Amino acid sequence: MIAMTHKHNFSAGPCILPQSVFEKAAEAVRDFKGKGLSILEISHRSTDFVEVMENARSLVRRLLDVPASHEVLFLQGGASLGFHIAALNFMKINGKGGYVHTGTWAGKAIEEGRKVGEAVVVASSEDDDFRYIPTDFEVPDDLDYLHITTNNTIRGTQFKSPPRTSVPLIADMSSDIFSKPVDVSKYDLIYAGAQKNLGPAGATLYIVRKDALGGTGRDLPSMLDLRKHIEKDSMYNTPPVFSVYVSMLNLEWLEAQGGVEEMEKRNRAKADLLYSELDANDLFEGTVVVEDRSVMNATFRLKDESLAQRFGRLAEEAGISGIKGHRSVGGYRASMYNALSLESVEVLVGAMKALRE
Amino acid sequence: MIAMTHKHNFSAGPCILPQSVFEKAAEAVRDFKGKGLSILEISHRSTDFVEVMENARSLVRRLLDVPASHEVLFLQGGASLGFHIAALNFMKINGKGGYVHTGTWAGKAIEEGRKVGEAVVVASSEDDDFRYIPTDFEVPDDLDYLHITTNNTIRGTQFKSPPRTSVPLIADMSSDIFSKPVDVSKYDLIYAGAQKNLGPAGATLYIVRKDALGGTGRDLPSMLDLRKHIEKDSMYNTPPVFSVYVSMLNLEWLEAQGGVEEMEKRNRAKADLLYSELDANDLFEGTVVVEDRSVMNATFRLKDESLAQRFGRLAEEAGISGIKGHRSVGGYRASMYNALSLESVEVLVGAMKALRE
Repeated sequence: MIAMTHKHNFSAGPCILPQSVFEKAAEAVRDFKGKGLSILEISHRSTDFVEVMENARSLVRRLLDVPASHEVLFLQGGASLGFHIAALNFMKINGKGGYVHTGTWAGKAIEEGRKVGEAVVVASSEDDDFRYIPTDFEVPDDLDYLHITTNNTIRGTQFKSPPRTSVPLIADMSSDIFSKPVDVSKYDLIYAGAQKNLGPAGATLYIVRKDALGGTGRDLPSMLDLRKHIEKDSMYNTPPVFSVYVSMLNLEWLEAQGGVEEMEKRNRAKADLLYSELDANDLFEGTVVVEDRSVMNATFRLKDESLAQRFGRLAEEAGISGIKGHRSVGGYRASMYNALSLESVEVLVGAMKALRE
Repeated sequence: MIAMTHKHNFSAGPCILPQSVFEKAAEAVRDFKGKGLSILEISHRSTDFVEVMENARSLVRRLLDVPASHEVLFLQGGASLGFHIAALNFMKINGKGGYVHTGTWAGKAIEEGRKVGEAVVVASSEDDDFRYIPTDFEVPDDLDYLHITTNNTIRGTQFKSPPRTSVPLIADMSSDIFSKPVDVSKYDLIYAGAQKNLGPAGATLYIVRKDALGGTGRDLPSMLDLRKHIEKDSMYNTPPVFSVYVSMLNLEWLEAQGGVEEMEKRNRAKADLLYSELDANDLFEGTVVVEDRSVMNATFRLKDESLAQRFGRLAEEAGISGIKGHRSVGGYRASMYNALSLESVEVLVGAMKALRE
């Protein structure tokens, strides 16, 4: 059922999902489970949708091996609201949160932390335009938490392992969750906008250690209180029904493919192929330090900008979509999320090679 | 393309939308505008999606005749987050907000208002189990705003006109927006979860008087600051792409049908038909006072509960879906949103008549 014209989609997000997921999602918009109703018009309190929500939450549990100490929630607002929710739920009154500053999104998390209380920048790679991941730093033990952004979608850097710390760890994993196994027990809170490896924009995943909540002394607004959402089984109010449904379909696909272990293998193979070409092709250069390169988002540029038009044409002819770098940094960015095939990367590498000819 | 099995959907929300909207939405999930990409995998910064967002906002402006003083935003979080956003953006530090308490959702708005500052209940119908809309009350002029819930989805009551007040008026219009014309200039803020007459769950509409913002003295979290969203043309962060797209399709349908004036006529005809049967049929009784009956959600019950099974069977055989009353009140609730046809109401009335035979 794949259209002959379907593009090689390297978009950074909202981004590619498996074609089979799009097909099933389209069918459910027409008629959900042969019920004579669209998925868009059923009550979120119906047995059918409660099953979808529970199935989606269980899939997250199974795929990431979430321990019983942690709860899984599908909320709204994206990671941008997550910055505020993280600080509200974890920063004590008169306490402070620690942050590793690795680029745009980490910067926004810090900014929102400062609206809640004291946000301390424990380490930063701002001195080199966020081209690397800081590793050599001390985490003061009076912090309420340490916050990291595991993968920096815009800059193309990625933590290969979380920093060692004695304080609770919080991670915005929006752009690399489900791309590889993760030891959830190391984190008190993981949050992630759906629109990379999880599902369509509009849902936001939270994985939170239950007994870490409720200790800030704050009386939280209901919609920003993770305990309230846990109490209500992630249905405190009408959830983003379609985004949760498509996330469920995508996680079913992921499980059938062999889970996050298999994704890690495939993602490494794709990244290796692209970065090898980048290092071999003297027309291009990568924009971040080699050891911190992201497996999800490869950022690079042409050494000679005058070739841009020709490369653009080659890419377009090959059916490549979405490789323009983020407006704040320029150049190119190839996002290689789970649903992107090795063949798509081969096509991109082909265009890069063709430019040399 | 309407399936023969398609149900008469009286669900209170997420609820019925036009079948043609479902068809177009399904097609866009497969292939958006023949681009070889799904609507779910395109960047929200792409020209194509920016157009969708602008089109959706313009349709709201045209359909509700929104004056230049007001801005239109598509955000996330539902009305439940709206309760908090309304109070944060309009209640001054050391100020107070006024509320009319007309049922569950108004009650939640009050609760969230109290987490922000002083929330005063100016009038309430709690004394009669929310069976009516309070009309005879004074609004103190030292309030920062007066908040109303224009239609009470659960109870089935509706304001026929807003209360007269000298303080800024804020309305949660989740369940009756776009069902009839509204004089937007009377309101400083209107907000509404999409999942009734607007679109699928996951988007929330805000219509706000621009010069009413920024006067509370609060430094707001970015995602809860309506000024921030206005500055960024409703794209501060990744919007709920699909919900906004389907809302746009639905508003295009609405405009083609003749706009909210035409909807008001049709909705009145549907409500008249149902309420006439309710008053004529001695097996049923309405649950709210006649003059405050909602045009959107008719609530009623059987006088003799032992007939419930037979009525349930008659309704099911007729293909009627979603008439169970809210779990907090019981009985029946027939929601008659814009996309529900007069024919569907005729089918329901037919089942009510059949029960008498």
